[in-house]
Amino acid sequence: MRIVVVGCGTAGASAAFAARMLNRNASITVIGDEEQPTYSRCALPFAIAQRLPLENIITFPEKRFARAKIELLKPAVAEEIDTQRCVVRYRFEGAEKEAPFDALIYAAGGYAAVPKIDGADLDGNYVLRTYNDAARLISIAKAGMTAVVNGASFVALEVAEALKQRGLNVHLIVRSRPLRSFLDEPLSAQVKWHLESCGIVVHQGAEIERLEGGDRVSAVVVGGERLGCDFVVHAVGTRARVELARAAGLKIGKTGAVWTDSKLRTSVGVVYAAGDCAEVEECVAGQRVVSALGTVAMRHGMVAGRNAVGAEQNATPFVRATVMRLFGLEIGSVGLTEAQAKNAGIDVATAQVKHPALPHYWVENEDVTVRLVYEKKNGRIVGGQVMCRTGGALRVNILSVVVERRMSVYDLSVSDFCYSPPCADVWAPEAVCATAALRRLEAQK
Amino acid sequence: MRIVVVGCGTAGASAAFAARMLNRNASITVIGDEEQPTYSRCALPFAIAQRLPLENIITFPEKRFARAKIELLKPAVAEEIDTQRCVVRYRFEGAEKEAPFDALIYAAGGYAAVPKIDGADLDGNYVLRTYNDAARLISIAKAGMTAVVNGASFVALEVAEALKQRGLNVHLIVRSRPLRSFLDEPLSAQVKWHLESCGIVVHQGAEIERLEGGDRVSAVVVGGERLGCDFVVHAVGTRARVELARAAGLKIGKTGAVWTDSKLRTSVGVVYAAGDCAEVEECVAGQRVVSALGTVAMRHGMVAGRNAVGAEQNATPFVRATVMRLFGLEIGSVGLTEAQAKNAGIDVATAQVKHPALPHYWVENEDVTVRLVYEKKNGRIVGGQVMCRTGGALRVNILSVVVERRMSVYDLSVSDFCYSPPCADVWAPEAVCATAALRRLEAQK
Repeated sequence: MRIVVVGCGTAGASAAFAARMLNRNASITVIGDEEQPTYSRCALPFAIAQRLPLENIITFPEKRFARAKIELLKPAVAEEIDTQRCVVRYRFEGAEKEAPFDALIYAAGGYAAVPKIDGADLDGNYVLRTYNDAARLISIAKAGMTAVVNGASFVALEVAEALKQRGLNVHLIVRSRPLRSFLDEPLSAQVKWHLESCGIVVHQGAEIERLEGGDRVSAVVVGGERLGCDFVVHAVGTRARVELARAAGLKIGKTGAVWTDSKLRTSVGVVYAAGDCAEVEECVAGQRVVSALGTVAMRHGMVAGRNAVGAEQNATPFVRATVMRLFGLEIGSVGLTEAQAKNAGIDVATAQVKHPALPHYWVENEDVTVRLVYEKKNGRIVGGQVMCRTGGALRVNILSVVVERRMSVYDLSVSDFCYSPPCADVWAPEAVCATAALRRLEAQK
Repeated sequence: MRIVVVGCGTAGASAAFAARMLNRNASITVIGDEEQPTYSRCALPFAIAQRLPLENIITFPEKRFARAKIELLKPAVAEEIDTQRCVVRYRFEGAEKEAPFDALIYAAGGYAAVPKIDGADLDGNYVLRTYNDAARLISIAKAGMTAVVNGASFVALEVAEALKQRGLNVHLIVRSRPLRSFLDEPLSAQVKWHLESCGIVVHQGAEIERLEGGDRVSAVVVGGERLGCDFVVHAVGTRARVELARAAGLKIGKTGAVWTDSKLRTSVGVVYAAGDCAEVEECVAGQRVVSALGTVAMRHGMVAGRNAVGAEQNATPFVRATVMRLFGLEIGSVGLTEAQAKNAGIDVATAQVKHPALPHYWVENEDVTVRLVYEKKNGRIVGGQVMCRTGGALRVNILSVVVERRMSVYDLSVSDFCYSPPCADVWAPEAVCATAALRRLEAQK
C-alpha cells in the first residue's frame, strides 16, 4: 500500500506516523515544502520572544521519520494531484517527479493572509506562519524599535507580547476588538485593558489604510494618522491552501477549505484532508468550519492517517477549546461565543462571574472570570470563556467536556467538584457561574 | 412554616440559608452545640500550621444569621426529636426548651473516632474535629516537640504536615497505606515517599498497640517498639452522629449513618438529613456511602433546606471528588479506586501515566501523574487519581465530569482539550492516560 502525504506540518506528520502505527508495511511518503521537518507552529511567538531557542521547537525531527521508515522529501513542492491516475507530481532537488498513491492525505496547511492595501508589498511587511518567518523576525527585532502588529487573533497578541518582551515599542491595530472570534465583548475589553497595562499601544476600531516608505515601510496610516514604525507584522488570519486540491477536483466547502466527511475523507474517496486546509464540523451547532488549531491538526491528522490505511475512525469532536497566556494572564475559550451562537440560530443568554479561586480566608488568592453562553430554552451550555492568572487551560478543559457532553447550567451547577483550602474553594467559579445562569433561567419561568 | 435545623456545621447552615432563600416567611431555628458559628472544618489543619488565623475561618458569622432572620441557638444541645408531636427538645442557657417544627433538618455531623486501646483516655490524646480541638492543638504544639499522628486519611496527613511546619518531629502511624480509600497502591507509595522526603517519619503497616504515660501520654507502642512523644493526634476516621436520629426512629443505613432518599428525606417524611451524619448514594456504582466531604455537606445541605420548604430537588450527584495539597504536591481522586470498583463487582483495569504538563521544549515544566480505573467491558471510566505540583484540583474536576457523565477511555482520549506552549501541551495527561488504556483494551480484543 502506498500512502502519500502532501504537507509536513502537524497534520501531515501526525497522519504519516499514525498510518505507520497501524500498517508496518505501507510505503509512506511525505512531501513538505519547508526546509525544516515538522515543528510546533504555536511555539513560534515564544521563539521570537527568545523565551526558547527556535531550533528547539522541532516536534518530529528527521531521524524520527527515518526510524519510522517514512520517506520525507523536503523542501519539495507538490504541483499536481492526479486523482484519475492516483499520482502526485512534485518538484524535488530541481527535478520533476511522480509519486503514485493508493491513498493520499492532503495536509497542505494555510497561508498567513496579507491585507490588500497600498504598501503591503514594501520590505518591512512580515507575517508569522513558518519557521523562516520567525527566524526573520528574530533577526530584525531590536530593542527600541517600533513595531506595528496588525490583527487581533491569538497570534497577533502573542507576537505583540513577544516584541514587547524584546524591548520594542509595540502598536497593535485591532479592527474590531481583541479575540472577537473567541470572546464576548466584556472579556475582549478586559484583554484590551490588560494589553494596555502591559505597555502595548492598542488602536481599537482602527484599520491600516496604507503603508508608507521608500524601499522599506517607515510608517503606517491608521485612522488618518501617520504612525512611524520600523516594521509591520500582519496577523490577520489564515487562508486555507487549496489550489492543488481545487485543481484536482476536490470539493471546496463554503469556508474556502477542502470539504471532508466525518471520516475526514474528501469528495474523492481515496483522498483525505486534515489540518488548516480542511473543513470540519464543530460539534455544538454542527456548523462547518476551519479550526486552524494545532490540537485539531494533530488529532485529525491521526484520524486521517489511520483511515488512509483502512481504519474507519470518526473525526474527533471539535469544540474549539483554545487558550493563551498573555503577559501572565490565561485567556481561554470553548464552543461558541454569544454572537456565534446567535448567528447559528441558537437563542442564548449569558452569565459571567468573577469569583475567587480559593476560600476568602486563604492568603494568596486570585479571581477567576468565567462566562457561560447557554440556550434559553433548556439551559444547555454552548460556550464558555475563562480568564485568570493560573489554571486557565485546565478550566477550559473542564468546560470543553461540559460543552461536548451537552451539559446544562443545572448540570454544571451541581457538579461534584473538589475542595481543599489551598487548592480550590468549596464552590468552583464554573459552578458559581452556572448557578447564576440557573437563577436567571428560573426567574424567567 | 417552622423549620428546625439540628447542627450548625456546613450542612446545617447551608440548609438554613437555602431554606431562607426560598421562603422569606418561614421561622428558621438552628441548634448548634459549639460556641462558634459555622466555620470551615477543612481549614482547621491550616490554622494549626499557623498559615491562617483560626478566627478567620468562620464562614457564616452570627450577624449573617441575624441578617437572614435565622435564629441561631448556640451552644445548645438537642436532646430529643419527637416525630409524633413534631417537637425538638433542647437545652439552652441552662434551661430545657422545646422547638416545634413543620420540617426538620438533621445535620448533626460526626465524631472523630478514637481507637479503643490502652491509654487512649490519658491526657495528651487529641483529635481534630472542631474549632476547639484546633485551638487546643495550636496552644500545645511547640517546635522541637515530638508528635504522633495516628491515621492515613486526608486529615491525618494535613495534621502531620501542619505540625511539621510548626517545627515538631512528626511520626505518622499508617495501618495500611496513605489515603487508601482514595488512591490505588502505586500512588499511595508515592505519597509515602513524598511524606518521608519532607521529613515525616512514616510507620507503615503499623498500629498503635497502647499508649503509655502517667497523667499524660509520654510514648506510644508501635510494632512492639516504644516511641517517646509529647502528644498524639488520632485521625482515624469519622463516625456519624446518629443517637438522636436513632432514638427518634429514623432509619439508620448499613453505613451507620441516617438513611436518606434521593430528595434527602429520611424514613420520617418531615425530617431531612445532610452532611456527615447522612447516607447518600454515590453515582458510579450506586452504593450507599457517607461522604464526609465539605463540598457535599454544602450542596446537600442546600438541597435538604430547599426541600424542607417545599422544593422537590434531587441530591446532587456524588462522585467523591477530593483533593489535598501536601507539602506542595496536589493529590486528588474521584470516583472509585481499583479495589472499591472490584468490591462493587465491577470488572476493571487501570492505566497510569506520568506525563509533562507542557511541551518538551518549554523551560519550566512539571510531570503530572494520572491514573484511570475503567471497566474492561466498555472502557467506561469509573475513577481517576491525579498527582502533580499545580492544577491538581482542576484536573480532578475534569475527571469528575468525565466520571459523572459516564465517559469511556475512548471519549476522553479524543476530547478537544486546549493547547498553548506556556499553559498546556497538545496532549493533556488525562488524554494520554486514556489513550494508553484504549490501546490496552484494543489489544485485548
